[in-house]
Amino acid sequence: MATANETIERLLRHRSVRRFTDEPVGRERLELIIRSAQMASTSSNMQAYSVIAVDDPDKRRQIAEWAGGQRHVEQAPVFLVWCADLYRFGEAVRMHGGSFEPTLEYFIVSTVDAALAAQNAAVAAESLGLGIVYIGGIRNRLSDVAELLQVPPLVYPVSACASAFPRTTPTSVPAFRLRRCCTGRLTTPRGRKRIFAGMTRRTGSMRPGGRAARSKRPGRGTWRRVRAIRPDVMAKCCAGKGSGSRSSI
Amino acid sequence: MATANETIERLLRHRSVRRFTDEPVGRERLELIIRSAQMASTSSNMQAYSVIAVDDPDKRRQIAEWAGGQRHVEQAPVFLVWCADLYRFGEAVRMHGGSFEPTLEYFIVSTVDAALAAQNAAVAAESLGLGIVYIGGIRNRLSDVAELLQVPPLVYPVSACASAFPRTTPTSVPAFRLRRCCTGRLTTPRGRKRIFAGMTRRTGSMRPGGRAARSKRPGRGTWRRVRAIRPDVMAKCCAGKGSGSRSSI
Repeated sequence: MATANETIERLLRHRSVRRFTDEPVGRERLELIIRSAQMASTSSNMQAYSVIAVDDPDKRRQIAEWAGGQRHVEQAPVFLVWCADLYRFGEAVRMHGGSFEPTLEYFIVSTVDAALAAQNAAVAAESLGLGIVYIGGIRNRLSDVAELLQVPPLVYPVSACASAFPRTTPTSVPAFRLRRCCTGRLTTPRGRKRIFAGMTRRTGSMRPGGRAARSKRPGRGTWRRVRAIRPDVMAKCCAGKGSGSRSSI
Repeated sequence: MATANETIERLLRHRSVRRFTDEPVGRERLELIIRSAQMASTSSNMQAYSVIAVDDPDKRRQIAEWAGGQRHVEQAPVFLVWCADLYRFGEAVRMHGGSFEPTLEYFIVSTVDAALAAQNAAVAAESLGLGIVYIGGIRNRLSDVAELLQVPPLVYPVSACASAFPRTTPTSVPAFRLRRCCTGRLTTPRGRKRIFAGMTRRTGSMRPGGRAARSKRPGRGTWRRVRAIRPDVMAKCCAGKGSGSRSSI
């Protein structure tokens, strides 16, 4: 019988924290966080990411504004910008006589490398009692942020993370519950047979290849699943977030 | 003084494992792993990812072949395919009367959501004594894999992860050492002033805004850094990996 351990319990307790104390995080903690990030898997050991700790108050203020007025970007003692970095790899290839042409595949590789490292950092930070919140809004004005931080070509800020000791414990945001992590098929409302990793509100249990996968109520899981998305989030997204300036990399 | 705790020590001990025992992982462990994954941050709570546990031996065999003959894809008791999933979100938007147009921003959001969840799963798995290895090679034949797994439109496999109890303890792959997590500037070999998160072989310590950031040896960090990439990895990447079929999403 598998039971949750300290690490898993911490993962399960995660909440995004947006209100921080002024207590300094300290260099030792930051170093542990970054070293943990570096131990995340990276594709072919390319390590196609970099991280910038932004301390300059003016830059913080500007980024906070661009990110939609998120004050914690200004105020958190630690603010890390995780960048996909193909510049370093491209330089290395050239040094060894090769030529490097960035492709969509490399874009994915570097984006995923940055995200895996960032999440290790988040887990490490939380294990030290810190709170974290990702700032996807750093992509609202991506070109401007890239210029502000003077990143080289082939580098872009994937996400940022504000971190510090939490002032308040936020309430949980509901997640889709997992019905199954499946190899089965589920008939969707459109009548097409597809594989999903079913996440529904109905149950919190996972049934690999189980009953849910052979449901006689086609589409039910799917409909429940999509209903679980909060209308306000959707409205925000439909109102242009994600289009226009956010695509300008 | 901050000290590493159990969670951080686990993160620092990470190695990719490619040789597994046959010992079953069990449903309870898998459920803990997936629940941990679901607690990772997701952009605007969109939860724009899904996970498919592939059990079917024929599918495993086919994916293993497409991924470059990675036998552990066939043999590992657990094989999870982490997908960026904008289909579910798009359906939800439509249900609420909106229209959804996938943009590059949404591509990034869903890719990062999938990666953050995958990394939480990897951390949870390792905390349970399992080994893990990411299979980026699942993107070698992305369209074929998507068809094999019958994923809906707007869903693509970002990465996969094979997991089980380790048969052997692999040796460490060298990571760039972190010189600084900086807000300073570093003059590169090309003479342009840029910000890097310096990772060099020279030291393992991080010096935010410290001496290294004001180095009088312009470019040195950068050159050392690029030299640290293994030539065989570069050769492989230059020989077409990352171009052509790997871009076909």
